Amino acid sequence: MQRPLFLGVFSSKKGSKMKSYNVAVVGATGAVGTRMLEQLTDTTLPIASVKALASARSAGKKVKFGNQELIIEELTENSFEGIDVALFSAGGSVSAKFAPYAVKAGAVVVDNTSYFRQNPNVPLVVPEVNPQALDEHNGIIACPNCSTIQMMIALEPIRRVYGLNRIIVSTYQAIGGAGARAMEEAENQYRSILNECVAPTEVEAHILPAGGDKKHYPIAYNALPQIDVFTDNDYTYEEMKMTMETKKIMEDDSIAVSATCVRIPVLVGHSESIYIETKKEPNISDIKRLIAEFPGAVLEDDVAHQIYPQAINAVGKRETFVGRIRKDLDAPFGIHLWCVSDNLLKGAAWNSVQIAETLHQRGLIHPVEQMKFELK
Amino acid sequence: MQRPLFLGVFSSKKGSKMKSYNVAVVGATGAVGTRMLEQLTDTTLPIASVKALASARSAGKKVKFGNQELIIEELTENSFEGIDVALFSAGGSVSAKFAPYAVKAGAVVVDNTSYFRQNPNVPLVVPEVNPQALDEHNGIIACPNCSTIQMMIALEPIRRVYGLNRIIVSTYQAIGGAGARAMEEAENQYRSILNECVAPTEVEAHILPAGGDKKHYPIAYNALPQIDVFTDNDYTYEEMKMTMETKKIMEDDSIAVSATCVRIPVLVGHSESIYIETKKEPNISDIKRLIAEFPGAVLEDDVAHQIYPQAINAVGKRETFVGRIRKDLDAPFGIHLWCVSDNLLKGAAWNSVQIAETLHQRGLIHPVEQMKFELK
Repeated sequence: MQRPLFLGVFSSKKGSKMKSYNVAVVGATGAVGTRMLEQLTDTTLPIASVKALASARSAGKKVKFGNQELIIEELTENSFEGIDVALFSAGGSVSAKFAPYAVKAGAVVVDNTSYFRQNPNVPLVVPEVNPQALDEHNGIIACPNCSTIQMMIALEPIRRVYGLNRIIVSTYQAIGGAGARAMEEAENQYRSILNECVAPTEVEAHILPAGGDKKHYPIAYNALPQIDVFTDNDYTYEEMKMTMETKKIMEDDSIAVSATCVRIPVLVGHSESIYIETKKEPNISDIKRLIAEFPGAVLEDDVAHQIYPQAINAVGKRETFVGRIRKDLDAPFGIHLWCVSDNLLKGAAWNSVQIAETLHQRGLIHPVEQMKFELK
Repeated sequence: MQRPLFLGVFSSKKGSKMKSYNVAVVGATGAVGTRMLEQLTDTTLPIASVKALASARSAGKKVKFGNQELIIEELTENSFEGIDVALFSAGGSVSAKFAPYAVKAGAVVVDNTSYFRQNPNVPLVVPEVNPQALDEHNGIIACPNCSTIQMMIALEPIRRVYGLNRIIVSTYQAIGGAGARAMEEAENQYRSILNECVAPTEVEAHILPAGGDKKHYPIAYNALPQIDVFTDNDYTYEEMKMTMETKKIMEDDSIAVSATCVRIPVLVGHSESIYIETKKEPNISDIKRLIAEFPGAVLEDDVAHQIYPQAINAVGKRETFVGRIRKDLDAPFGIHLWCVSDNLLKGAAWNSVQIAETLHQRGLIHPVEQMKFELK
């Protein structure tokens, strides 16, 4: 068994010794897991050690952690001894099975999958929006879906002042949300088209629109109006995540949310075209100010100088960029806007690490008294 | 001067001789112009000859017309002698100057630019939707904007039965709408990224988002929320075209339309995420039937089998494909749908040729009695 990487005990500014944490990353080889490790090299969370966990297939391989390398260990029920914080991003079934063992071992889990998000015992948190929800945690905190998180950053500053009756959102989601293999496949599709003159309809496709679904379609030069599989109401799960997660995070079931989630040939960086109706008559310049002042949000809205958020500019950044803010041409309480964020950072890895930071700030990293999750 | 290509006099089924037309294509070397010539090889319009016109720069070059080649002639004020039908797609300023000369020479003009679209003397026509508007033409008929046309095909069958109060549309528009050079530039951007490891933010960009605007941004792996330049109300002209053209084509100023127009890295084939509110309570299975039966529309809506419209499948087709039709989760009269069409065919070349076919069917190809357009 690998010895945890020792990072030393951090000191507070007052000179007294401060608790520092043993952190585990589950799914450390994935598109999100590697970025979780990256984000952990630049965090206010005091870290004592980092353990990289993945499936048996990856055990023994190395992953980068800053200038160092971690050796991947196989994830088992016993992986969490001595761990204080466990970040999960290895798929819903892995979280379903192993997150309760991490809690049982005394860790606090931040789970980036959808498995626990609608569980009433599990807070669903965007730290800038609803950090107070962390106070009631039972050992597992869920990180919302990427497409929901950035929408919350864009809309919360408006909601707090003007209220929010409804949201209609059409997404322009990056391939990276489907994982590193999907990005590789897309690049290979472009190479086939550009270098070998293969028709876009004829390139090889084995992953998108949804790994778990029957048919697979090319994404190069295409737009796929399916992310995740379909539910019984003809919306996809991705679309229903945006609906249900918004209500839970904003703690308001009366907000009407309907989404159309679309995958486009962008590698990293989700964009969203959002229409909202506020409760009070909105003032656009005030809304721009509110967004500019909101933590985690960056206003990029100066159409006279062609300034608006763009996916390629958001890559590698932790913020959510908001622009094209304008009144609906007819509805007096209607507003349109465009928001962009790095779906792998604020949409996943950074929001997860930020939840851990916030747990620490609020003194909430400790073993739970009562186990509320079933061990399978 | 090139002799018009003689194609013979067509005969009607009754054996009587039928009028056939001398057709001119203005802008014959462009992405749309070449497709106009292509569409003219498969049309019910009886054609006697075809003349290819373009700027002096292109004069003398050859363009394909079926198995034959046409020699490009320079467009001048005298190009339209003997021409019955002139299809224009060489930019608004070219139409502004030369379309009136074509009308003066006795031709009927079908103009694919935005220049005449809001002129009260000019019908704006999608043949499946408002062919009756042709009856009042004064020598110039405008072909609507690509993004408007396919939306009209998707929504007109619904409007006729259920009425239409409002439309909120977010587009996923192909690069081809900005012309052949924009498509070449996009392909070069992808080659730089994939073959030379240039960062997506660093590739060369000289055309998009709008040729006439100051700044230019990469489109490879990006989404640009700007098509055409911005107007005073913070909407782009492209967005305002969708608003104004919808009202004119549907002959109803009370329909509320707000658009967000976005360029995505697709070469050909516009997609649109459309939300509508009807006047009467909609029935989804009835709406699917209405769309399936509407001319020019193809229903592709079977989510259980992952059937929905995709840009790569629409390329080269004349129809508009509609799917993902479902009720809003909250608004009882709200419907969401997804529609896709080849923006260079139904969005431009085919709709223009189809207007000419419809003019012929209605006996409307003849010189105007009264000249209503200024000669410049």
